[in-house]
Amino acid sequence: MRIHPECYPCFLRQAYATLRLVTQDEGIQERVLKEIMEKLSMYEGKDPPPKVSRIIYGTIIQHLSVIDPYKEKKAESNRMAMGLYPKLKEAVRRNADPLYMAVKVAIVGNIIDFGVGRTFELEGVEALEGLDLIISHYDQFRRDLEDAKKILYIGDNAGEVVFDKVLIEELSEKEIFFAVRSKPIINDVTLQDAREAGIDQVARVVESGCWAPGTLLDEVSPEFRELFFGADMVISKGQGNFETLDDAPRDIYFLLRAKCDVVAQILGVHVGDTLLIKGGLS
Amino acid sequence: MRIHPECYPCFLRQAYATLRLVTQDEGIQERVLKEIMEKLSMYEGKDPPPKVSRIIYGTIIQHLSVIDPYKEKKAESNRMAMGLYPKLKEAVRRNADPLYMAVKVAIVGNIIDFGVGRTFELEGVEALEGLDLIISHYDQFRRDLEDAKKILYIGDNAGEVVFDKVLIEELSEKEIFFAVRSKPIINDVTLQDAREAGIDQVARVVESGCWAPGTLLDEVSPEFRELFFGADMVISKGQGNFETLDDAPRDIYFLLRAKCDVVAQILGVHVGDTLLIKGGLS
Repeated sequence: MRIHPECYPCFLRQAYATLRLVTQDEGIQERVLKEIMEKLSMYEGKDPPPKVSRIIYGTIIQHLSVIDPYKEKKAESNRMAMGLYPKLKEAVRRNADPLYMAVKVAIVGNIIDFGVGRTFELEGVEALEGLDLIISHYDQFRRDLEDAKKILYIGDNAGEVVFDKVLIEELSEKEIFFAVRSKPIINDVTLQDAREAGIDQVARVVESGCWAPGTLLDEVSPEFRELFFGADMVISKGQGNFETLDDAPRDIYFLLRAKCDVVAQILGVHVGDTLLIKGGLS
Repeated sequence: MRIHPECYPCFLRQAYATLRLVTQDEGIQERVLKEIMEKLSMYEGKDPPPKVSRIIYGTIIQHLSVIDPYKEKKAESNRMAMGLYPKLKEAVRRNADPLYMAVKVAIVGNIIDFGVGRTFELEGVEALEGLDLIISHYDQFRRDLEDAKKILYIGDNAGEVVFDKVLIEELSEKEIFFAVRSKPIINDVTLQDAREAGIDQVARVVESGCWAPGTLLDEVSPEFRELFFGADMVISKGQGNFETLDDAPRDIYFLLRAKCDVVAQILGVHVGDTLLIKGGLS
């Protein structure tokens, strides 16, 4: 999807939220915000929001000489999610359809996203039972899964990655590749975050080659590209991956929560809705 | 108060909200947002936010050739508030201290503000009974009122003006001047809005001479300035007037709700708190 006018105020909000993490100096905050506004005012493309958001994070990183503003928050998310892990596993075990419950767990993990402004609040594991998928291509997902041998699972955020692990553990006897961002951006999952969460115990962790809170196919590494088109099935987590892969030339299962009005409107759902969508332009 | 870094994302949000009211053309929305970002990126002053916000509304008005984007919303707010008027009057009549209740009514009317992003939700009139003023200089307000003959009441928004009328009606036997903005900006009260709400039946309505969602003393008319410094008492409604008059060289009673983190932090309160503060730098 391409950038929407509503993305600009959201970018500025994200910029300020990130700036607050790295400096309390209001003079610097103001200067960097103004530089970001100047750059955004000159931006003329029609790229997906995650590509444009690099203007924001790039400017902050450059000015503040900080590589990973969300480093601590990511570690905290991982710790918190790992604390929930036994309960999540129990919920999956108890369910008549463990795979379905594991899918819901993975989507609920997508709540963990500091880039989007809504309150960070992890629902009780209990709420998972009653949670409905507003769009659900689960039956097809299940069928496609039966035939699939090689699966590419594109991760989204730190913390959330623990929830992904729960789903991946239900995909046994498959060859799973778990893709992470190649460099830190917002709270998106990197190699280190994935390892912290123990993803390397259940999947082969690969870097996408791309630095964006999403997956830009024109920037990924040749290895990732081969995996992406060669896998029997691609599972994409979160809104950032959806924003960048919704028009990719292959089948993709998108597991996400709609986190802003723009994406909710494109999908015809409400903000907060949990979705399992077979998409892509195959 | 001077502009804070957090004001910039808020300006952009307000700009987009206003643009949506006047055009559905995303190309125009994007172009105007970019022009606003360019202007804000070059802004070097340390003015109060309501002064800077003219960059936003001025750019929109200029591009869209619209004089009053909130015209319909203001009329709707007035109508809605007038529907509540009998209940508000009843609540005042019933109370052991009608003046105190009328003060609370006036502050609660300050919820009506489309410029600030929080959900527009008018509390039940019933909730007024239990409402606490988080900062209350009410005793002093009451004492000063006894001696005052000439009162300047600086209005804030359309709709809210009906709530102001309830308070003004408790200030009987005083000479009341009710100040409005000289030109439309956001949903701020103008001469027409005040007349619609019947303010001219209980006060002399005067224009401040200023075009801003606040009161800029260096831009008001000579008549307003004379009133401002000559009145025995000045009552200022809403956050925009607080942002522009907090350092004015005279006593002012500020009646407001804290509507954003920046103002809440300055006052040491929480967003949403209702306040009656004796301020100014006299």
